[in-house]
Amino acid sequence: MIFMAEVLITPREGVLDTQGKAVEKTLTRLGYKGLSEVRVGKIVRMKIEAAGEKEAIVDLESMCSDLLCNDLVETYNISVKEAGQ
Amino acid sequence: MIFMAEVLITPREGVLDTQGKAVEKTLTRLGYKGLSEVRVGKIVRMKIEAAGEKEAIVDLESMCSDLLCNDLVETYNISVKEAGQ
Repeated sequence: MIFMAEVLITPREGVLDTQGKAVEKTLTRLGYKGLSEVRVGKIVRMKIEAAGEKEAIVDLESMCSDLLCNDLVETYNISVKEAGQ
Repeated sequence: MIFMAEVLITPREGVLDTQGKAVEKTLTRLGYKGLSEVRVGKIVRMKIEAAGEKEAIVDLESMCSDLLCNDLVETYNISVKEAGQ
């Protein structure tokens, strides 16, 4: 079966997010008010072939620890749905 | 009111996503099979103060065109919910 997968990778709570700080500062300088806690993360979308949803998620978790996510400072969230749904 | 906002910024369909290609190639080299159409985007989360949900979204759209999103090659998707919900 083919699945559409989405992996959200975000900085862990409490970890300094320099990119987020930079975006917050720049937006504030541009005149936007009332912003706080700006955090920047990544999103990886892909099509993945697997025997089932469970197998797809196992594969994706393994990809996260192998390449996509730095587990020390980032967390990830995986969502999967069958393609064509 | 304070809202939690999430902005997903992804490469437009048809636009070459070099980062996505690199991730796809590397994952394939690592032994993962059945991957295709890997796309990498950004996610920006923030707390934002606004009079209402509508006003928050208007502000966020303006931030996207001012700074967060390169409208030529990227699209964005905004979601907002009241903080504490």
